Amino acid sequence: SKGKLHSNFPLCHVFISFQIDHFGFLEDGTFKQRYLVADKHWKQPDGPILFYTGNEGDITWFCNNTGFMWEIAEEFGAMLVFAEHRYYGESLPFGQDSYSDSKHLNYLTSEQALADFAVLIQNLKNTIPRAVHSPVIAIGGSYGGMLAAWFRMKYPNVVLGALAASAPIWQFPDMVPCGDFYKIVTQDFARSGHNSINNVTSTASGLQWLSEEFSLCAPLKSVMDIAIFKNWLQETWVNLAMVDYPYEANFLQPLPPWPIQVVCKYLGFDPTVSDYQLLHGVSQAAKVYYNYTGSSSCLNISQTATGSLGLLGWFYQACTEMVMPMCTDGVQDMFEPEEWNFQAFSDECNAMFGVRPRADWAGIVYGGKDIIAHSNIIFSNGGLDPWSAGGVTYNITDSLISIMIPDGAHHLDLRYSNDNDPPSVREARALEVKYFREWINHAPKTPRTAPTP
Amino acid sequence: SKGKLHSNFPLCHVFISFQIDHFGFLEDGTFKQRYLVADKHWKQPDGPILFYTGNEGDITWFCNNTGFMWEIAEEFGAMLVFAEHRYYGESLPFGQDSYSDSKHLNYLTSEQALADFAVLIQNLKNTIPRAVHSPVIAIGGSYGGMLAAWFRMKYPNVVLGALAASAPIWQFPDMVPCGDFYKIVTQDFARSGHNSINNVTSTASGLQWLSEEFSLCAPLKSVMDIAIFKNWLQETWVNLAMVDYPYEANFLQPLPPWPIQVVCKYLGFDPTVSDYQLLHGVSQAAKVYYNYTGSSSCLNISQTATGSLGLLGWFYQACTEMVMPMCTDGVQDMFEPEEWNFQAFSDECNAMFGVRPRADWAGIVYGGKDIIAHSNIIFSNGGLDPWSAGGVTYNITDSLISIMIPDGAHHLDLRYSNDNDPPSVREARALEVKYFREWINHAPKTPRTAPTP
Repeated sequence: SKGKLHSNFPLCHVFISFQIDHFGFLEDGTFKQRYLVADKHWKQPDGPILFYTGNEGDITWFCNNTGFMWEIAEEFGAMLVFAEHRYYGESLPFGQDSYSDSKHLNYLTSEQALADFAVLIQNLKNTIPRAVHSPVIAIGGSYGGMLAAWFRMKYPNVVLGALAASAPIWQFPDMVPCGDFYKIVTQDFARSGHNSINNVTSTASGLQWLSEEFSLCAPLKSVMDIAIFKNWLQETWVNLAMVDYPYEANFLQPLPPWPIQVVCKYLGFDPTVSDYQLLHGVSQAAKVYYNYTGSSSCLNISQTATGSLGLLGWFYQACTEMVMPMCTDGVQDMFEPEEWNFQAFSDECNAMFGVRPRADWAGIVYGGKDIIAHSNIIFSNGGLDPWSAGGVTYNITDSLISIMIPDGAHHLDLRYSNDNDPPSVREARALEVKYFREWINHAPKTPRTAPTP
Repeated sequence: SKGKLHSNFPLCHVFISFQIDHFGFLEDGTFKQRYLVADKHWKQPDGPILFYTGNEGDITWFCNNTGFMWEIAEEFGAMLVFAEHRYYGESLPFGQDSYSDSKHLNYLTSEQALADFAVLIQNLKNTIPRAVHSPVIAIGGSYGGMLAAWFRMKYPNVVLGALAASAPIWQFPDMVPCGDFYKIVTQDFARSGHNSINNVTSTASGLQWLSEEFSLCAPLKSVMDIAIFKNWLQETWVNLAMVDYPYEANFLQPLPPWPIQVVCKYLGFDPTVSDYQLLHGVSQAAKVYYNYTGSSSCLNISQTATGSLGLLGWFYQACTEMVMPMCTDGVQDMFEPEEWNFQAFSDECNAMFGVRPRADWAGIVYGGKDIIAHSNIIFSNGGLDPWSAGGVTYNITDSLISIMIPDGAHHLDLRYSNDNDPPSVREARALEVKYFREWINHAPKTPRTAPTP
């Protein structure tokens, strides 16, 4: 259905020049950043602008996976804008050199991205005369949802409100328990049988068997390979938990409806089965995720999701500002115990990028749990989504609202509506629309000059 | 009186290490920043922290000129903290090299300074256990007042409210008319007789006469010298307008009570007097400002105020973010007509520092006139103060408050109380105290974890 909608609904790709560095004046260069505009339904003058705060990937991919905005454009008479995040997709500050070293990566931060968005909106208002008074609502999912919330917090002069869908703004040090994320993954599954991997891979023949059983593109050879394999499998379960949508969809991978139900058929863990039988089930399960369409000849353990995501960029962000502690204990979750070790993480980051993360910064700059002074933000979260562990899942004030979608996975509410949608996501979308209306109807009209006495 | 107070009231000078660059991770160096703490009256636990957001100069000077904080410390049971602004006083990121070139100056921005303040408060709360729940109120005057207001806007998680005294947060492009500033200076004086300077300096003997009449340290020789002289005289009137306090004070210079009244005795401009008679009066007037104590043997036209202000640093800030248009027309003000010319200004900045100002940035990042979403900020302004032209001089909401002090010069309310204070400043201080109390009494208690249902 989404293809059809787009064909009736022209989308312009536009580029705008931004300062490479908004926060310093030595680097005065600019670069071309991409944004997409759809104004077919825009009601002039003053129709609202629904603004997608692009996250770590190609903006066209987020555009295609945010059907909610396309579906409400007409009823709001809204212009849709999808802004690409710097360093992703085609918005590369230094072209092919953008990722070459820590010097070129230095301008990849959330603060710079928010400044880009603010300058872009200012520019739209300066160049589209009938948009001068258009209220702007920021919308984003996942990291894009964090940006939407922070955008409203830091630039309330630019955006009237924000929908932060599945935005783990509290997945930072000392805000939520580091183990909650994997507990939710575990709740969706059961146990995955990592011990069996250790048992089986203790022999060379077991290693070979495992590589063949999983149809791996490159056979496992070393202890390092086994670690990568286990990590890949762990991420697979996380991704499955994120995209457990009620209908056939292609977000991180093409998948059947309710993919976890399908996967779990193969994971009926009978404690009496052998390690080999158990791992056979796991391989069948993994193939649901990696080869639902049957088009993959082998599985590549260096990749867990769509190539539209900019993984390297996100690693850099995690190694600087986006420090998100995760841990497992093997008791309350189904994974091997692993503590959160900031120092080890910092050393890894230093080895990889020559930078060290600052554990406290995100909490200071974006307020951590003390966000009560802000307003007009909806935090929506899915009960199936592990990222809800770091999300805002209760109302903070009557203008900082939590919407829970118990049957929802990762920002299901942002997707196109579907006949198989659970009632909870339909209600969530209706509530979101209601808040948008309220914000627009009560938008303050700031006087540009002093009121006459 | 202030010396007495301080001697009863110990003040600690403390240094803390800050990131040189809060907004990038390539430069991972730190530097020592100074702050002053006085906790004699601090009521533990949870007594408030009154936090002075240091501006462009030595923090001890602002500390000594902000008697208001010292006077209210006891009644609030407050800890006083005065934080020095990076690149001023003893807080130099690269020591003696800090001003050597645009590379070293690159971290001199208001955003970095606000981040310093936020990190400092976080650090105080982490290291003083009984201050964890202490509400923090930001206080500042002039640029420090702008920082106080912006601090509350950008970090409401860190500061509960702000007193922004004589803070021209609207003295930016397209926010207020560029001529209002000098109109106010003019209202305080009359006309200064710049034409007489042109007439007198048209001959070599006239030039010599003028240099001797003004007791200049270096005689005027060239057209450039005359331009500098006129500029120095113009700044003198501005400074006098700023510090027209009702009692003997030493802020920018040691001065008598109501210095403009004293100066104006010499400026009784009778249109029939000769240029020489008129300039004699102007020189007597200037000597009130520059030599009230009689200790200066000559006047130095390269300096207009105390050496405690970091003028070079402020020029750099004006050449980057703090773009404050000023203009004169010689009709509504007493100065030679001069338009605001952004391009010429930008070229000057480029020649001086190798940077170019960004005219729109301050408005985008700090909201310009659209600040209605914020709360708990008092904007106080003096009717005699030219900086009130760019200040917030009307209430925006019942929590963004304007307090006008008609008989007040530049942040008179922040100074020690004095028997000669006009009633308007007494009322202003009382109101400020009342708002502080309200903020503290109604400080939200954000739950650190989800409320139990």
